[in-house]
Amino acid sequence: MKNVIVAQSGGPTAAINASLAGVIRGAAESGKIDRIYGAVYGITGVIDEKLVELGSRFPAESEAWKRLYGTPSSYLGSCRFRMPSPEEDPSVYEKVFAVLEKYETEAFFYIGGNDSMDTIAKLAAYGKEKGSSIRFAGVPKTIDNDLVHIDHTPGYGSAAKYIAATMLEIAHDTYVYRKPCVTIVEIMGRNAGWLTAAAALARNEYNDAPQLIYLPEVPFSGTKFLEDLKKQLEKKHNIVVAVSEGIRDEKGNYITSSDAVNDLFSHAQLSGVGKTLEQLVKKELGVKCRSVELNILQRCAAHISSAADLRESEQLGRAAVGYVLEGNTGFMSALERVSDAPYEISFNMAELSEIANLEKSIPADWISPEGNDVGEKLMAYMRPLIEGEVPVAFRNGLPEYESIGHLTGL
Amino acid sequence: MKNVIVAQSGGPTAAINASLAGVIRGAAESGKIDRIYGAVYGITGVIDEKLVELGSRFPAESEAWKRLYGTPSSYLGSCRFRMPSPEEDPSVYEKVFAVLEKYETEAFFYIGGNDSMDTIAKLAAYGKEKGSSIRFAGVPKTIDNDLVHIDHTPGYGSAAKYIAATMLEIAHDTYVYRKPCVTIVEIMGRNAGWLTAAAALARNEYNDAPQLIYLPEVPFSGTKFLEDLKKQLEKKHNIVVAVSEGIRDEKGNYITSSDAVNDLFSHAQLSGVGKTLEQLVKKELGVKCRSVELNILQRCAAHISSAADLRESEQLGRAAVGYVLEGNTGFMSALERVSDAPYEISFNMAELSEIANLEKSIPADWISPEGNDVGEKLMAYMRPLIEGEVPVAFRNGLPEYESIGHLTGL
Repeated sequence: MKNVIVAQSGGPTAAINASLAGVIRGAAESGKIDRIYGAVYGITGVIDEKLVELGSRFPAESEAWKRLYGTPSSYLGSCRFRMPSPEEDPSVYEKVFAVLEKYETEAFFYIGGNDSMDTIAKLAAYGKEKGSSIRFAGVPKTIDNDLVHIDHTPGYGSAAKYIAATMLEIAHDTYVYRKPCVTIVEIMGRNAGWLTAAAALARNEYNDAPQLIYLPEVPFSGTKFLEDLKKQLEKKHNIVVAVSEGIRDEKGNYITSSDAVNDLFSHAQLSGVGKTLEQLVKKELGVKCRSVELNILQRCAAHISSAADLRESEQLGRAAVGYVLEGNTGFMSALERVSDAPYEISFNMAELSEIANLEKSIPADWISPEGNDVGEKLMAYMRPLIEGEVPVAFRNGLPEYESIGHLTGL
Repeated sequence: MKNVIVAQSGGPTAAINASLAGVIRGAAESGKIDRIYGAVYGITGVIDEKLVELGSRFPAESEAWKRLYGTPSSYLGSCRFRMPSPEEDPSVYEKVFAVLEKYETEAFFYIGGNDSMDTIAKLAAYGKEKGSSIRFAGVPKTIDNDLVHIDHTPGYGSAAKYIAATMLEIAHDTYVYRKPCVTIVEIMGRNAGWLTAAAALARNEYNDAPQLIYLPEVPFSGTKFLEDLKKQLEKKHNIVVAVSEGIRDEKGNYITSSDAVNDLFSHAQLSGVGKTLEQLVKKELGVKCRSVELNILQRCAAHISSAADLRESEQLGRAAVGYVLEGNTGFMSALERVSDAPYEISFNMAELSEIANLEKSIPADWISPEGNDVGEKLMAYMRPLIEGEVPVAFRNGLPEYESIGHLTGL
């Protein structure tokens, strides 16, 4: 028997099941794999031997497979588990390899972000040292788009499309009143501004919202922010601001809420940037102001996924299987940009060692000189990633997704 | 010349432009109207004589008309203007009637909620007293679904569909982890729970979230809420709670945030219910908890409008024109439910006098006996209102809406 095991880790996205569908399809179509198992709850599902057979449940291109492809959140569940080093805890490695061997595993695929790539790197290194023939591949995933060695990450395009579409609709909503009003939209992104930058894609012939964009890559100054706003309010009634949850001041402190709110939380809380700025605007400018936090909808709104994103997510899952069957191990399937317009990418394998420890920020020359907007290079980079719509089946007025939660027993 | 004027008022929705499209189409197809004017910024656009010709801009069934039909937010802008009584300020009435007469107006249509119906009632009464032949019609609109004398209001179905779809996607998002977690979703609705109740539509064969629903119609008790949650957490890891922004305690006080947060605001702030309960759960149950506020996205997410809602909104606009041309004045076009399944409605005219002063709450026997869920009658009422999808054209990866904001000069 030659089997494979696949698992998902980290936060759920609209595209992570497309990558799972890609691994399943790649393994099935190779003709070289007998069984495709899914580990439930990430690597902990391997340790606990919580495995389900996926190949017969999702024959490639079947209705169930297509539904899985477009279903938000991790079908196999997830975990937040930091893999110890073999020196720290060899028993974890022994357990994982024992289960992999018991299931006659040819290869293990881990779909996830930085931490998951760290896990894959460690397992691959351990296997190599022990002379194991089991191969290990990472399949990238994170809406944050902050992985290095890959042009952009699966999940980012769909989140960007949701953010841009929502920003356009919020802009519509702001246009109706005569009274000056500032709308602050708080967008995910702790250290990198890729998601917040996507709000700029909402601009078109009639809409120039968001007029201001604040990214974590640029130190944030409240004084400068109020000046920026005042200038904008001289030009028009309704101003929309896109702001990253992760903006920090010159000293590197998060712009979280006022002292009163800080008292409520024991540690720096990555929410409330929108509310904080809302209070600042009301107090200092005396203008009507409201804040909107896009929250977890950014990662789970599969009813408006990017077709480009889901297509590439599936391809990256499939590519990982192909690379493994060619004899590779200890890599992450990745993609490179060949050109922006026409949009063209190529697939390759990325070195794992740096992925877990580095985060990719927006390059300084992709941000406007004033630091309150995106530049054209960034726009050209983002545009193709939200292209295309994924057909969503509706039943009883709602999207019809693959049933989820029964594996995870919820 | 026989002309009509139409205006929009109150908060924008995903369906209010469908009603505008209905008035335009009704007037154009009647063959009895020469010009269709739109007043910009509601009734204040009449007072200020800020009128635009709409008939040639949106020929019925043209591409522009179809785009307007599905475009979120008020194309003509809006206002928050409380019409004084003629005794208080006769000059407002004199000004309105002078403009209506100048434009040889046969009828004035006002698309809006309670306040707009109050305006229409006052104008109709004033006209009648002065012997004017100008007719006045209200066209209903409010996502809150709280108007009396109508089965349900335009805008509600689309908001309900957005809420239910989003709730389903949030449920997917919660299913991935093993660790117990409570997700609180705060939904609009100050005095009526119709929008929050729509979250229940997300339930299906595999999803029973939201497991708990708290409506403003039922006095809220923190103790009972924690008991409810504890019971649910015995059954499963991940609990989703839908809660209305307008829930109040037994004394009628809003459950706004803790004292610390109250200090930040000068008056009862209708946001933060989610955050307040989040803190309560963390403190009292020691379980992971997060809150999500759906915010203005509920009223502007036209990319997932209800086809039933937009169809009826257009029909109500068209019906108002028909009733006016039959000689009626001082009414609101309305609809009655004939049956839930198969879904059937009939159109009629509603008496305006009570609409402005009454709010329709959910009947007590449509809520579960425990007060923490909806009943089957309410489910049967809501189900048909989210049925059907409106085809949305996409360009550059985003919905292509009718250009908005140029009229309102923003």
